Amino acid sequence: MRLREIGEFGAIARIERAAARSRAGTRGVVVGIGDDAAVLRARAGEDLVATTDALVEGVHFRFATQAARAIGRRALVANLSDLAAMGARPLGCLFALAAPPSLPVRTLDALVAGILDEAAAHRCPLVGGNVSRARETALTLTALGAVARGRALLRCGARPGDRILVTGTLGGAALEVALALRGRGRVRRVAVPRLAAGRALARLPGVGACIDVSDGLEADLAHLLDASGVAAALEPARVPRPRGFDAACRRAGLDPEQLALAGGEDYELLFTLRPGAPAAARVARRLGVPVAEIGRVLRRRPGGRTRPARGYRHF
Amino acid sequence: MRLREIGEFGAIARIERAAARSRAGTRGVVVGIGDDAAVLRARAGEDLVATTDALVEGVHFRFATQAARAIGRRALVANLSDLAAMGARPLGCLFALAAPPSLPVRTLDALVAGILDEAAAHRCPLVGGNVSRARETALTLTALGAVARGRALLRCGARPGDRILVTGTLGGAALEVALALRGRGRVRRVAVPRLAAGRALARLPGVGACIDVSDGLEADLAHLLDASGVAAALEPARVPRPRGFDAACRRAGLDPEQLALAGGEDYELLFTLRPGAPAAARVARRLGVPVAEIGRVLRRRPGGRTRPARGYRHF
Repeated sequence: MRLREIGEFGAIARIERAAARSRAGTRGVVVGIGDDAAVLRARAGEDLVATTDALVEGVHFRFATQAARAIGRRALVANLSDLAAMGARPLGCLFALAAPPSLPVRTLDALVAGILDEAAAHRCPLVGGNVSRARETALTLTALGAVARGRALLRCGARPGDRILVTGTLGGAALEVALALRGRGRVRRVAVPRLAAGRALARLPGVGACIDVSDGLEADLAHLLDASGVAAALEPARVPRPRGFDAACRRAGLDPEQLALAGGEDYELLFTLRPGAPAAARVARRLGVPVAEIGRVLRRRPGGRTRPARGYRHF
Repeated sequence: MRLREIGEFGAIARIERAAARSRAGTRGVVVGIGDDAAVLRARAGEDLVATTDALVEGVHFRFATQAARAIGRRALVANLSDLAAMGARPLGCLFALAAPPSLPVRTLDALVAGILDEAAAHRCPLVGGNVSRARETALTLTALGAVARGRALLRCGARPGDRILVTGTLGGAALEVALALRGRGRVRRVAVPRLAAGRALARLPGVGACIDVSDGLEADLAHLLDASGVAAALEPARVPRPRGFDAACRRAGLDPEQLALAGGEDYELLFTLRPGAPAAARVARRLGVPVAEIGRVLRRRPGGRTRPARGYRHF
């Protein structure tokens, strides 16, 4: 059965029924799917955080190399990671689907199941969306969150002398994609958004700036540095890589250090700490995830900037 | 010059620069475009309202029959109308663009200018978004608003005995599209979202349910009735049509009554009032727009429902 057989409202009804499970255990949804708009309720004294991200067939994913359920998960993870990078807790999400009438209904169901896997895991209920015909499939997710008033983590707060740290490991997602593109297996791993770590970071004294690593470490570090008007010295050898990563890269003829610096979609948090803030090991305990120190923020020379970034770029 | 020449970050920088003008005179934006997510601030005691809608090339618009600036305006109007139907005031919007690398930069600029025309007119600043490559151009807008806690207008509040009313006139947008598709001119008119009327309606005693007419009167009335579990008697002859509309329809061989019942994108508000609520003329004064009474809500017979709707459907 294909989308054209169940129609727009059939698809909406299917998504609506499935979405119910993402509401379990959450508060704050006043009106979910089914009205002109969703109504959400934050706590008193909270700011609203909003972000949107799209996955487009043939650009961000291929049904041939990744299961639809994993694609759905990735679509929400990208947004949840943005909430994490702001130190926000999720309130709910919206799902705008564009798809050809020939899309199998079981693919729709799997995409939605993937979104709801993440929605349920991170208490970010699916509360609305849109369904439209298109020539290619695209998933545009919008995540809404809340953060204590004035406490959102920003990209623009880095200062010369800050230490640069990153959670977890980098390069793993890019390696899997590189191998899948060479026909060696499908892309199975979906990164875990660092929501709890982001919230803990927002409460940590001495945080300068924060961004999530979605485009690649170098590219996202450049965004953070540009927003803050500073430069940086990065120690590539200290960038944490997954266990077995270097060997797997070499077997595939890939440079592990390059891949860890330029590969995207690991969704780790990259942040800076003032010189007097706790050491990496203590920060790791507070955040509940591994943390490595990988460089230092420098003054930017007039006219100078960071070296060109190597992350993924559209167009 | 085309998108591929300025790249993803060039496009984002262009949108960011242009977006500044939509911030003028607004409050509530803590962090706009340029960070991982936007941060917005509602007033104490307000609920958050969120809605998303997409315009896809070849489905919702064609560059051949409508100016890019008007397409941009339409993309945000659809969302603002959803906020209006909830009785909400706008807080800000997000713009996810999918476009081919061959898209002329001047088309991007015109799309953005259109979005910002509406954003500025309705104090709904552009605070974030996403840019992605795709085979066809699609604009996915998300609007965020605020409404007094627990006071959002819903689809589900209609009761037997309620009167059914609609603001403004219907059919005008569909007529223009029908004429454009026959090669008689371009689609120039963009509907005005009924934001002030929606907010006034949310304060009016005796409102049952409310929805905006985006898919067409019959289709949207069916949504409202389904959500409320009721039926309705509609008087097609009383559905208000624009001045000169009937004559223009007849010249084009179109049935004016049909077009007013089934045509979409007029973005008027369709709502029900309890029997004891003020008469249409007095409601019109409170809302600041023309209002017509067009039918009555009935009890739904077991197994019965409204007759099939004729609005636009995807797939």
